Amino acid sequence: MAYGLARRELAPRVPLRPGEGEKNHLTSLEGLSALSLDALSSVAYGPEAIVLVLVAAGTGALAATLPITLAITFLLAALVVSYAQVIAVHPDGGGAYAVAKKDLGATSSLLAAASLVVDYVLTVCVSLTAGVDALASAFPDLARDKLPVCLVGLALLTAVNLRGVTDSARVLMLPTVLFIVAILGVVVGDLLRAHPAAVVGTAQPVQAHETLGLLLILKAFSSGCSALTGVEAIANAVPTFRTPRVRRAQRTEFMLGGLLGLMLIGLAVLIRRDHVAPRGGVTVLAQLTAGAYGDGWAYYATNLIVTLVLLLAANTSFGGLPVLMSLLARDHRLPHLFGLRAERPVYRYGVVALALLAAALLIASEADTHRLIPLFAIGVFIGFTLSQLGLVRHWATERPSGWKHRALINGTGAVLTTLAGLILLFTKFLEGAWVVVITVPLLMLLFSRVQRYYTEVGEELGLGRIPDPPAPRPGSLVIVPLGDVSRLAQHAIGAALALGDEVVCVAVHSDPDKSRALQEAWARWNPGVRLDVIDSPHRSLVQPMVEYVRHAARGGRQIAVLIPEVEPRHRRYEILQNQRGLLLATVLRARTDVVVCMLPYRLRV
Amino acid sequence: MAYGLARRELAPRVPLRPGEGEKNHLTSLEGLSALSLDALSSVAYGPEAIVLVLVAAGTGALAATLPITLAITFLLAALVVSYAQVIAVHPDGGGAYAVAKKDLGATSSLLAAASLVVDYVLTVCVSLTAGVDALASAFPDLARDKLPVCLVGLALLTAVNLRGVTDSARVLMLPTVLFIVAILGVVVGDLLRAHPAAVVGTAQPVQAHETLGLLLILKAFSSGCSALTGVEAIANAVPTFRTPRVRRAQRTEFMLGGLLGLMLIGLAVLIRRDHVAPRGGVTVLAQLTAGAYGDGWAYYATNLIVTLVLLLAANTSFGGLPVLMSLLARDHRLPHLFGLRAERPVYRYGVVALALLAAALLIASEADTHRLIPLFAIGVFIGFTLSQLGLVRHWATERPSGWKHRALINGTGAVLTTLAGLILLFTKFLEGAWVVVITVPLLMLLFSRVQRYYTEVGEELGLGRIPDPPAPRPGSLVIVPLGDVSRLAQHAIGAALALGDEVVCVAVHSDPDKSRALQEAWARWNPGVRLDVIDSPHRSLVQPMVEYVRHAARGGRQIAVLIPEVEPRHRRYEILQNQRGLLLATVLRARTDVVVCMLPYRLRV
Repeated sequence: MAYGLARRELAPRVPLRPGEGEKNHLTSLEGLSALSLDALSSVAYGPEAIVLVLVAAGTGALAATLPITLAITFLLAALVVSYAQVIAVHPDGGGAYAVAKKDLGATSSLLAAASLVVDYVLTVCVSLTAGVDALASAFPDLARDKLPVCLVGLALLTAVNLRGVTDSARVLMLPTVLFIVAILGVVVGDLLRAHPAAVVGTAQPVQAHETLGLLLILKAFSSGCSALTGVEAIANAVPTFRTPRVRRAQRTEFMLGGLLGLMLIGLAVLIRRDHVAPRGGVTVLAQLTAGAYGDGWAYYATNLIVTLVLLLAANTSFGGLPVLMSLLARDHRLPHLFGLRAERPVYRYGVVALALLAAALLIASEADTHRLIPLFAIGVFIGFTLSQLGLVRHWATERPSGWKHRALINGTGAVLTTLAGLILLFTKFLEGAWVVVITVPLLMLLFSRVQRYYTEVGEELGLGRIPDPPAPRPGSLVIVPLGDVSRLAQHAIGAALALGDEVVCVAVHSDPDKSRALQEAWARWNPGVRLDVIDSPHRSLVQPMVEYVRHAARGGRQIAVLIPEVEPRHRRYEILQNQRGLLLATVLRARTDVVVCMLPYRLRV
Repeated sequence: MAYGLARRELAPRVPLRPGEGEKNHLTSLEGLSALSLDALSSVAYGPEAIVLVLVAAGTGALAATLPITLAITFLLAALVVSYAQVIAVHPDGGGAYAVAKKDLGATSSLLAAASLVVDYVLTVCVSLTAGVDALASAFPDLARDKLPVCLVGLALLTAVNLRGVTDSARVLMLPTVLFIVAILGVVVGDLLRAHPAAVVGTAQPVQAHETLGLLLILKAFSSGCSALTGVEAIANAVPTFRTPRVRRAQRTEFMLGGLLGLMLIGLAVLIRRDHVAPRGGVTVLAQLTAGAYGDGWAYYATNLIVTLVLLLAANTSFGGLPVLMSLLARDHRLPHLFGLRAERPVYRYGVVALALLAAALLIASEADTHRLIPLFAIGVFIGFTLSQLGLVRHWATERPSGWKHRALINGTGAVLTTLAGLILLFTKFLEGAWVVVITVPLLMLLFSRVQRYYTEVGEELGLGRIPDPPAPRPGSLVIVPLGDVSRLAQHAIGAALALGDEVVCVAVHSDPDKSRALQEAWARWNPGVRLDVIDSPHRSLVQPMVEYVRHAARGGRQIAVLIPEVEPRHRRYEILQNQRGLLLATVLRARTDVVVCMLPYRLRV
């Protein structure tokens, strides 16, 4: 799964793996499963976020949930239409970072990258905490241990993604369909009843300590906007669709918009009708579920499906962020190691980085969804705005037929998302949005510092210029550190003679008796190579060897130190071997400029 | 200090360091400071251990403390006389392990080594917990956090010993003298008073649930024997004394015996006279201190001195165990890495091993001195017995004048310590001694398994035999993995040409455009070396390179892979570099038998 969702960001750049033909590409419905769980699952915390803000003005204020949800759905519609155009213009996908880099320039792309990083980390955290909230609604005993349960979930995701999971959109089909059916079932089931089937959770006293003014409404709106996160995923992954790609991707985008809007409005209607207020120990969605299905098996099943889907939504970040980091690494804006995929097709450094960042944030927020929500949507809205601004620029430059009309759509989207982003920022600043305001510029600074370093290194290495021809050197000397006359010495000298014009063996001994014995054995063996014995009364092997090598290097010849290493057959014996050679190699590499060679000698024991 | 005390075990083998002339050798009094803190400090827990056993038979039974202490003092006298002979016979010192290896053979030396390891670890743990008990007697708030305080103390000792402290016996002089004066002052001061000056701690109900039978007396005796630990240290370090060594060391041994005996008997008299019973929150020694000095500043000062001396006693193990482990490593009975002293004169692997073992034991025992005491003295008594048996064997073999008389002294010592050891074992078996009974044979097994492995490796390497002459090889091929045409490539090819008969550069590229661009640049540069480009559509760099190298190695030539590495000027930039080369080197070393060479290229940025 990780890999399929990974293509959110990487589609145009990563060639197909074996077995990935057109057949493995997504139909519209499969695309909905693979790419929209992040967005659909936000109905688990979006409506609740509105309710939690409004209840500050008393239960009466909760009636405002419906109009606020309608406003959010209007924004959703604008986004969906706008993203349908993004899909048509960028059939190569690539996400806000790629689009900003192409259409808007360096700074915008850094802004997009920084906000995407924040967004991915928060997606993991919010999805996990909301998932545990849903689980705790079914199993109240978990409520006290939310943080440990979240961390266990995070560890699970990390382990799965480090191993690398080959995905299949078909695997995601079942939970997606079950989730949509369950949520729409809640809406329909509850509407068909006169009274709620059951009431769950514990009553909480509601005290109005604010009035339902404009500020509170804007706050509720901005909290509810967390439900919009994830609607950009489809546009980022157009190449993963089956042909005709653009048409299928657009269709999926509209399906996502329609379903998400329907669920949001339906839940808001229920909240108004059933006078749902926050209750202890259960989520708003769980209350509505109990109202529709009762508190029997269907209640448990629905909560479990919601948990599962939220866990899968958290997993989308594990597909997305490591790939984004690898793109940044390839653009020299993050350490190159984030672009390494050692043996498995997994960017393990990116996976680990995401896990560490998410764990830190979960611990800092004590796994409380409502503390994370204020941080959440800002990064996403920056991405929305940049994507659409890029498209406006695109229309203005290319000017195809009807470009004004199209630029108007995207411009409207950009203005709306900018407005929504500013509302978010100002109403939530002290509640946590300031963290994002600080983090995003710091990340941008980090990216540009890294880029500057790599530019300087490239300058120094003369990348892109033809260097002088390699200088011929006056012969080579291979130094072989040895301790005894043995087959290891024989093996090492054989290799050294093949490599060097001259070979010399060096032994460091602290015991004069032993060094004499070695010299005698050497004379008897007579391997045709000189042996130098260094007396080291202080038992240090490394320091005298480094000095010897440094001295030899003064001659201007090419010096190589060939360190023979005994390799045991079983890994468990490794602790019994090798340490001296590795230590010497490390110190030589740190303190001299010579070539350091390791020669393995494989034991049969 | 670590180093001076280190010489407990290593004296005959480690040559002097610069500045260690005769002047730096110990006088008798300095020897007492440097080598007897471990033994002297046991008055802080030895008498208490007796009292805690006897109180099970009611406060009346505490009168038995004095006769039991007299029996222990008699054993002490026998040990001191016996060790005076050990000093004369083994002026090279070396401890129970060296003596057993020389006089008693392999199995006995393994037994000695295993029991010494147990002893050193327990010395750290008991000294730390008793030290924290003393500290908590002065500052009762600490009583609840004994384990964390112990672990902090352990971390401190570990850090100090990892850095390597040059010691001076003179530094230890002051705490030693203060400690002796303070304890003898307690004895004298208390005896001069009619009534105790002050009572500290909280009263605890005493209920007699056993009768004062033989078993209880033997148990109390064996617990009290923990006071004898450490009297062997002087005999292990004879070479650290100033000439005449043997005389000075013997004098120190007698001083130690006299002082320790005096303190033990004195404290036992006080316990009888003042009817001291265990009280909550304070140690028995602290009660006696308060009885003599009151609970003012002198009480605090004495407890602090006791704590300091116990901390220094714990430190003796950091001098002793790493050195013992290095001797075992040199005898091929522990991994050789324990014999490594990288840059500083510190066996850091041994220090870390001791710290980990002690931390595990502290956590398992919850830092409770009274849980550790039953484990403590057994290892020590094994060492006592082996040392003296070795001497009996020595007398019987050498037969100098008066050898029968001498053998009788050591034989009596051996019988007494064997008896005491058996009493210890049987009375304390279920209370914890079983741990030692299991651990010692396991350690012996470990040592002999390690030795067997090294013997097999030596066999395979033909150590001690003259091998065949190094076989000439048919030329050499140096493979240089490269990514770009750059100064790095120029540098690497220069070095490779000096080392190989033939040089070939290899690039792995996933992007056909890039590989074409590289080939064009190569043609323009024309460095005189062939370039092979491997297309790797899956972005894996390592796997294709390994296959290329394996293929090249089939020819029978000596193959070397020369990996150029960019080394940034500042360590903090290292994360930005190098990872690919290191990864390739690691994989090549694990999967092929070729020579793997690293060539540094030092950046100015």
